[in-house]
Amino acid sequence: MHDDMGIPVLADIENAASRIRKQVSITPVLNDPGLDAVLGTTFFAKCENLQRTGAFKFRGASNAILRLREKGIQGDVATHSSGNHGAALALAAKLDRRSAHVVMPKNASKLKVEAVRRNGGVVHFCAPTQRDRESGLADLVAAGHIPIPPYDHFDIIAGQGTAALEIAQAGLGVDAIITPVGGGGLVGGTAIVGKAVGLPVYAAEPAGAADTAASFAKGKRVDSWQPDTIADGLRALVGLRNFEIIRQNVQSVITVEEQEIKEAMQLAWQHLHLLIEPSSAVVIAAVRKSPAHFSGKRVGAILSGSNIDPQEWLRLVGAGG
Amino acid sequence: MHDDMGIPVLADIENAASRIRKQVSITPVLNDPGLDAVLGTTFFAKCENLQRTGAFKFRGASNAILRLREKGIQGDVATHSSGNHGAALALAAKLDRRSAHVVMPKNASKLKVEAVRRNGGVVHFCAPTQRDRESGLADLVAAGHIPIPPYDHFDIIAGQGTAALEIAQAGLGVDAIITPVGGGGLVGGTAIVGKAVGLPVYAAEPAGAADTAASFAKGKRVDSWQPDTIADGLRALVGLRNFEIIRQNVQSVITVEEQEIKEAMQLAWQHLHLLIEPSSAVVIAAVRKSPAHFSGKRVGAILSGSNIDPQEWLRLVGAGG
Repeated sequence: MHDDMGIPVLADIENAASRIRKQVSITPVLNDPGLDAVLGTTFFAKCENLQRTGAFKFRGASNAILRLREKGIQGDVATHSSGNHGAALALAAKLDRRSAHVVMPKNASKLKVEAVRRNGGVVHFCAPTQRDRESGLADLVAAGHIPIPPYDHFDIIAGQGTAALEIAQAGLGVDAIITPVGGGGLVGGTAIVGKAVGLPVYAAEPAGAADTAASFAKGKRVDSWQPDTIADGLRALVGLRNFEIIRQNVQSVITVEEQEIKEAMQLAWQHLHLLIEPSSAVVIAAVRKSPAHFSGKRVGAILSGSNIDPQEWLRLVGAGG
Repeated sequence: MHDDMGIPVLADIENAASRIRKQVSITPVLNDPGLDAVLGTTFFAKCENLQRTGAFKFRGASNAILRLREKGIQGDVATHSSGNHGAALALAAKLDRRSAHVVMPKNASKLKVEAVRRNGGVVHFCAPTQRDRESGLADLVAAGHIPIPPYDHFDIIAGQGTAALEIAQAGLGVDAIITPVGGGGLVGGTAIVGKAVGLPVYAAEPAGAADTAASFAKGKRVDSWQPDTIADGLRALVGLRNFEIIRQNVQSVITVEEQEIKEAMQLAWQHLHLLIEPSSAVVIAAVRKSPAHFSGKRVGAILSGSNIDPQEWLRLVGAGG
């Protein structure tokens, strides 16, 4: 229906929602009055940290794989990933009786390598540079595997948008939605939903990986940034078409400091009883520091993932969290 | 309507559900096919670990306090607690503009003392013996405070039963419900619901605090047990009327070993992305070790709480959880 190089519309996201329904969890939305008091807003946490494979990434991966099936395209898939997309693609492929080949830097965390393997993926180690990752993937594609990139892809964006669709359909009466931004798959899909249903969408980004905020301010995509943040899921540069969606449809990109991210992780544990990864916590930090945008509002915030070693969580947040 | 010394019926639990609705979260139910594969059952986790104050205890406390309001009984409340009931009662009292006085052993964990205080409770330290706890509470009652015990209480049992009511009403098609048993408030309320709607109810208990299993086997309440378990929420002796409900309405009391509890905590993190306290994990351990009861069934299991220091979780489960 749509060109895979194009930008999804609401109908694509609605179709994705029907397509992935049997595999993907409708994640819970949590609210805690104690957290609301801290944030000065009514905060609805959309718990993609409780999604299968522990991250929203499974929505996009599931949609991409099921679209291959619909189109009758057979064969294994491949990607490079140091994070959640690899595990999500592995599971989505396994459920469709395909293999997923994931190029990972040889210094990737043991936990993330195990997550890919636990979900049935085949790990190919490479030297830890962007060039080696890309050439590793190119080799797999040359061998006939279908590339499924983590965010700059029509079906991935449409799949990630289904989380926002669930927020919009849940009858919560939200005034705005906020998501983290790394490569821009999640905020891209969310912004398409927001635009269609008349809800302003905000993006939250670590100051140490603020290429999207810089791009947004300039109105032109910044194509180089040396990321330095604990939010490992948000170190990627925003994708080309992802930035185009953001530029046109996102209200504001709010940057937060590392200490604010750590405090937000602690707030999530104390008030929501959830251990979340730093990339998730940026939305809590952004709402907390931006009363001008959110004070007194009802805000739907996507907690993107839970994939952190509890030991690392403790190192970041401190004992007695 | 009912004598406070009696045993609640389904209508009392339904009334409790209406009464507490504005304060208490309808907690999510999570399922993960990966966990199902490990357990050999379709496992629905009723997430009371995500309840306000991090435990199902807030249901009973809220019901008890709101019943006082209905009856026009004014004044502060008091209890002794080294655990989740203290924090739950503190919050329920605060929401009704009362104070809650909580007698705690002076060696209680800093985390639990802070939880009571954060929720507005007044902590009274005592020597760490049952006798000192009871005399501390007696002093408060002599001073005019209303005692609200943690489990052997009509309104507490009715309130705790509302979690099972939500499971029964969620349309999950469960074949059975399982809950942890300590003092027996949660399993008591659950068993009343189970009996009324025709669902068998199981209790799970650490082998190191198996007074309920021993009582159940004898058909008579054992009134002495030296608990030795990491499941700190389940160290209490089962209450008098709680045991009476269990004896008449519970299918079986399944005991689990400490190592099985730790493994279940790890399974909850890997598959459900939830950090839960040991007392919650006993239900996962019990389902895992009892295929004779649960194989191929659809089981609703109440995860009772999340109140554990992540550092302690890590000590029990090990790094890389």
